[in-house]
Amino acid sequence: MSQFRYLKELVYEANMEIPREQLAIVTFGNVSGVDRQHGVVAIKPSGVPYHRLKVDDIVIVDLDNKLVEGDMRPSSDTKTHTLLYKHFPEIGGVCHTHSTYAVAWSQAMRSIPNLGTTHADHLTKSVPVTEVMSDEAIERDYELETGHQILHLFNRENLSPQEVEMVLVACHGPFTWGKDPAKAIYNSIVLEEVAKMAFLTLQINPATPTIKQSLIDKHYFRKHGKDAYYGQGC
Amino acid sequence: MSQFRYLKELVYEANMEIPREQLAIVTFGNVSGVDRQHGVVAIKPSGVPYHRLKVDDIVIVDLDNKLVEGDMRPSSDTKTHTLLYKHFPEIGGVCHTHSTYAVAWSQAMRSIPNLGTTHADHLTKSVPVTEVMSDEAIERDYELETGHQILHLFNRENLSPQEVEMVLVACHGPFTWGKDPAKAIYNSIVLEEVAKMAFLTLQINPATPTIKQSLIDKHYFRKHGKDAYYGQGC
Amino acid sequence: MSQFRYLKELVYEANMEIPREQLAIVTFGNVSGVDRQHGVVAIKPSGVPYHRLKVDDIVIVDLDNKLVEGDMRPSSDTKTHTLLYKHFPEIGGVCHTHSTYAVAWSQAMRSIPNLGTTHADHLTKSVPVTEVMSDEAIERDYELETGHQILHLFNRENLSPQEVEMVLVACHGPFTWGKDPAKAIYNSIVLEEVAKMAFLTLQINPATPTIKQSLIDKHYFRKHGKDAYYGQGC
Amino acid sequence: MSQFRYLKELVYEANMEIPREQLAIVTFGNVSGVDRQHGVVAIKPSGVPYHRLKVDDIVIVDLDNKLVEGDMRPSSDTKTHTLLYKHFPEIGGVCHTHSTYAVAWSQAMRSIPNLGTTHADHLTKSVPVTEVMSDEAIERDYELETGHQILHLFNRENLSPQEVEMVLVACHGPFTWGKDPAKAIYNSIVLEEVAKMAFLTLQINPATPTIKQSLIDKHYFRKHGKDAYYGQGC
Repeated sequence: MSQFRYLKELVYEANMEIPREQLAIVTFGNVSGVDRQHGVVAIKPSGVPYHRLKVDDIVIVDLDNKLVEGDMRPSSDTKTHTLLYKHFPEIGGVCHTHSTYAVAWSQAMRSIPNLGTTHADHLTKSVPVTEVMSDEAIERDYELETGHQILHLFNRENLSPQEVEMVLVACHGPFTWGKDPAKAIYNSIVLEEVAKMAFLTLQINPATPTIKQSLIDKHYFRKHGKDAYYGQGC
Repeated sequence: MSQFRYLKELVYEANMEIPREQLAIVTFGNVSGVDRQHGVVAIKPSGVPYHRLKVDDIVIVDLDNKLVEGDMRPSSDTKTHTLLYKHFPEIGGVCHTHSTYAVAWSQAMRSIPNLGTTHADHLTKSVPVTEVMSDEAIERDYELETGHQILHLFNRENLSPQEVEMVLVACHGPFTWGKDPAKAIYNSIVLEEVAKMAFLTLQINPATPTIKQSLIDKHYFRKHGKDAYYGQGC
Repeated sequence: MSQFRYLKELVYEANMEIPREQLAIVTFGNVSGVDRQHGVVAIKPSGVPYHRLKVDDIVIVDLDNKLVEGDMRPSSDTKTHTLLYKHFPEIGGVCHTHSTYAVAWSQAMRSIPNLGTTHADHLTKSVPVTEVMSDEAIERDYELETGHQILHLFNRENLSPQEVEMVLVACHGPFTWGKDPAKAIYNSIVLEEVAKMAFLTLQINPATPTIKQSLIDKHYFRKHGKDAYYGQGC
Repeated sequence: MSQFRYLKELVYEANMEIPREQLAIVTFGNVSGVDRQHGVVAIKPSGVPYHRLKVDDIVIVDLDNKLVEGDMRPSSDTKTHTLLYKHFPEIGGVCHTHSTYAVAWSQAMRSIPNLGTTHADHLTKSVPVTEVMSDEAIERDYELETGHQILHLFNRENLSPQEVEMVLVACHGPFTWGKDPAKAIYNSIVLEEVAKMAFLTLQINPATPTIKQSLIDKHYFRKHGKDAYYGQGC
């Protein structure tokens, strides 16, 4: 049996949340997980419908995208995932979906403003959106460049990937990450809900301001950091 | 066995309506119930996903938020619940959700106008929205102050918690209550539907007026008070 | 066993479509059926949640709203149903729901324009909306007057209840009917979809015209009348 | 047993995706498949609810719409399907639904602009919309003329039915096709999602531009043609 069986199981379970939570139709979307000790990533195979996906279909590649284990081609977005693992050393899982409201904000090329505590519970900033990719970058190595678009954005806006665990790729859709594959998909679930709430809020009142900093901080820090008191502390 | 087992069961059942009725994702939302004779409140533990919640996980605290029974930390919103029980002596259950349309109205900081009989069947007024909390109050004791925001609103607008069993907390989301935990969650279900209907109505016709007082009264009093004739009278 | 058992079963089945098709939350909505030979109507009891409803709970009243059979109080909307049966001699079932989009159009006090073939397959006109009821009528006998509002509208606009089997009651919600209870609930399902489609269409293009008469007639008459060729002709 | 049993099964399975994916209510919608060797088409019978549909109900007609096998009347849209098979020799399946967002765009008589990679993964152009049919054509042979409207549009705009596998019929709704019935219904699922995403995107930012050509080409050609690298290459 594969020495990466445990990782394949975690990644399989996280992928199966995508159809369960209606975060993508047909074969869209993918979750991966990294084993930093062995330098490998487990990821969904490309173009497989979720109802046919099995644990053993999960593909193992190294951080340079070389196949390590598996009978299928890995997700076409694999290079985006591996680039994020290389540059964000604290993360353990990455998720990409085509969830409807998050895609709509991505296509509209608008960041999602922080309009309430559902958002502030998870990040203090807007959910940022990348710039549109240049023609040269698209031609060069599209999926790798998608990763670079995300890195450039985080550098330019001085964002921490531990504080901001979600991003919108312009004209495309959301990527999220976290300490493990389960947290990565959790963030995709939250992002879709936050995207829908922000959409509706601005339809009701287009002049809705972002919430005040003191309230953002209160909600964020009651869930994160050493003085957190939300949850069971494990 | 716990002497509060009956209350834990009621509160557990009411909490499980939250995912069933899609009133919150992941771990969000909480329902509580009070035993006024023993001065205790049963409430959902903090940050537990609904599919893992068990009756025995329900936490018992007293009205000063001290733990009475339970292995887990109570909901981080517990102080809001207990303050409402202290000041609204007729209520027996409180519910807080992050339901999508009610949150959107809360984030937009707009009360929900009474535009039809679905709303008027349940309350004669708009669903009111609190003011934004001051920085001082946020710093002081956030969840307790959330309760105070609600109390101030009800005092200021001279609202009866028996007639108006629902409120929007600005930038946050809805709280509802009722004679028992089942009525509290029932009111959250109704509020979400009323919030969605009002949203759509104003998209179709932004100039829609609130319904006339005689129609409001007719609908409200056919369901409430001594001349009510809706339902089976039990 | 009740001689009206067969009618209770038809009415029970039609009522259970309301939660299945998500046409109302909690206890809202009701379907009835008439037995013209015996002059009785079978209808949902008032305020009973659908998951607890049983065939034997269906109440039998006569056309003057007197209880004939049943342990429970009939729907509070019974007088609206019986008035429609008295004045529309061809109909065999009536349905009232609080379905979200149909209610939104009712609250907005706008008729639903005929924008496409999904609508034209079922009626050639707009879905009409009643006027707001006068204070005197509300005071007099509200549910009976709701029926009269519908009759006035059909008289005033010279509508045929056999051609137009659906109506919006202003500030309230939809009523539909048909040759039997199954057709009445079928029309409520179609109305909600047509209401949603019209809403979205006008959001995309507020200047969308109603469809041309020749196309309306083609679609309506391929499903209705002696030259119909849709369906299996039974 | 029918020599077309295999085709009936494929067509039955594709039809059953319509209610599963919520692409139409009640009896609306239909999928067909062609057997080019025998010159026959298998299609859903007219007006049958999906929960009662059986494999043996699928009707076999020839390309001139003559009944070959079956106890029921074929879909009233059969002439549209057979005309498409005659003029688009590469296709093996056709699907027609009344899915909500695609119908809304059809009723609004607007083509769906290419606003993101979910769309570009499937076609490089807008999803085109036909002109409104003339009164003469409606009178002549409505369902056949619906097919001609689609052919005229593809001729006029020089579209390839292999590249653009979906179309909106003005005032009516979508038709999609593909190499087999499964691909035809797959395209209907994708179209509905793309229609909803485009609707929301333009609500967020009415000035959203279509995505740049280089990005359209990249996404389309990574899934289609000889250099495709999405999926498992089978």
